[in-house]
Amino acid sequence: MKTLVIISHPDIMESGSQQYLLSSIPNDTNITVRHLESLYPDFKIDVPKEQALLKEHDRIIFQFPLYWYSSPALLKKWQDDVLTDGFAYGKKGKALTGKEFGLVLTIGVKKEEYQPGGREAFSIDELTKPYQALALKTKMIFLKSLPIFQFSYLTETQKMALLIRYQQYLTREKDDSLEAREKWFIQELQMTDLSKLNEGDQFILEQTVEFIEENRDTIDELKMLLDQMN
Amino acid sequence: MKTLVIISHPDIMESGSQQYLLSSIPNDTNITVRHLESLYPDFKIDVPKEQALLKEHDRIIFQFPLYWYSSPALLKKWQDDVLTDGFAYGKKGKALTGKEFGLVLTIGVKKEEYQPGGREAFSIDELTKPYQALALKTKMIFLKSLPIFQFSYLTETQKMALLIRYQQYLTREKDDSLEAREKWFIQELQMTDLSKLNEGDQFILEQTVEFIEENRDTIDELKMLLDQMN
Repeated sequence: MKTLVIISHPDIMESGSQQYLLSSIPNDTNITVRHLESLYPDFKIDVPKEQALLKEHDRIIFQFPLYWYSSPALLKKWQDDVLTDGFAYGKKGKALTGKEFGLVLTIGVKKEEYQPGGREAFSIDELTKPYQALALKTKMIFLKSLPIFQFSYLTETQKMALLIRYQQYLTREKDDSLEAREKWFIQELQMTDLSKLNEGDQFILEQTVEFIEENRDTIDELKMLLDQMN
Repeated sequence: MKTLVIISHPDIMESGSQQYLLSSIPNDTNITVRHLESLYPDFKIDVPKEQALLKEHDRIIFQFPLYWYSSPALLKKWQDDVLTDGFAYGKKGKALTGKEFGLVLTIGVKKEEYQPGGREAFSIDELTKPYQALALKTKMIFLKSLPIFQFSYLTETQKMALLIRYQQYLTREKDDSLEAREKWFIQELQMTDLSKLNEGDQFILEQTVEFIEENRDTIDELKMLLDQMN
């Protein structure tokens, strides 16, 4: 599976969350990352290039900070220019059919505010309806979103958990069985450049792999026992 | 009451609906119309100018064709640049508090498709949640939206009805009594440049004014009778 990550952030160098996510992207040739503001500072999108990239990938991710409950303007320009009638929708527009489409959102306000009675009143699921509608129109499969609330307040452990969820979001096939999740986890960790992480994080990661492998052994033994009893 | 109409449309000259709406804007010094793509073709917004305009007006209207269930990119750029922390929201951001905020949307697909089971699946009210949230955040009063579905299929009578609804949307105070609506109607018609309309429309308008005035006279007479009976 090949994944295209389209990032829109006008000030990505100053964003702790975006830098963390970028540094944790596995060293994987099946992942293509594009930062729109670096590529198109003048808002002039290379439409044929973007359309070709979309065709080559199976999972399309929009990654952006929530600005006025939507993406920064350049990603909207990308949508308006690239997702044309005859390409993304309409009678002859089948280029995106069957691909997966997901949102990675960085959000400055805490999760609890995004509900009735909260300061933001509407949930992230409500506010992202335009993207759900986009998936529907282009016949893409809408993935559960990955909203990241108040990144700078996360503990180190929460950040590690986020790193794993993010890597899964980019690369794990849509198979939610425990075995598939384990397999993915070990595979990806082998591709993660541990030297980029601090020592504490490295230790947690290595420990986690050991636990998983031990658990798998126990599960397999129990299964064998059950088989013998039947 | 002063109204600011912020239009975003990349190809406004070719848009039948936008041209119709533009031509029907009353000749009223209390209405300011700004077409963003004409003003800022390079996506560089004059923020102090836009903020000053917002302060001077009581009702703010966003008028745009629905592109991917949202505004064209330039209006999003305007939002991101102009509606800053300290101006539109945040502790010191009170510039928009108490103003009215409305959406005039031109939509290429028919209304029936914007519901569960329809091709677009989501309603306009659902898709415009980000704007409702914006109004909430900036403490503006969100007006009922004015969505215009498939303008080019409207009959002449429907277009005339739309013209009236649009003029009301821009200028009528939020008073829904019959008398207030009548008063508004006659006032505005006196400011409409009838020479821009074709003869049929002129005739309908003039007739309508007569009907309203006659009806008002009848109502007043009935009221007098009732008063005498009491």
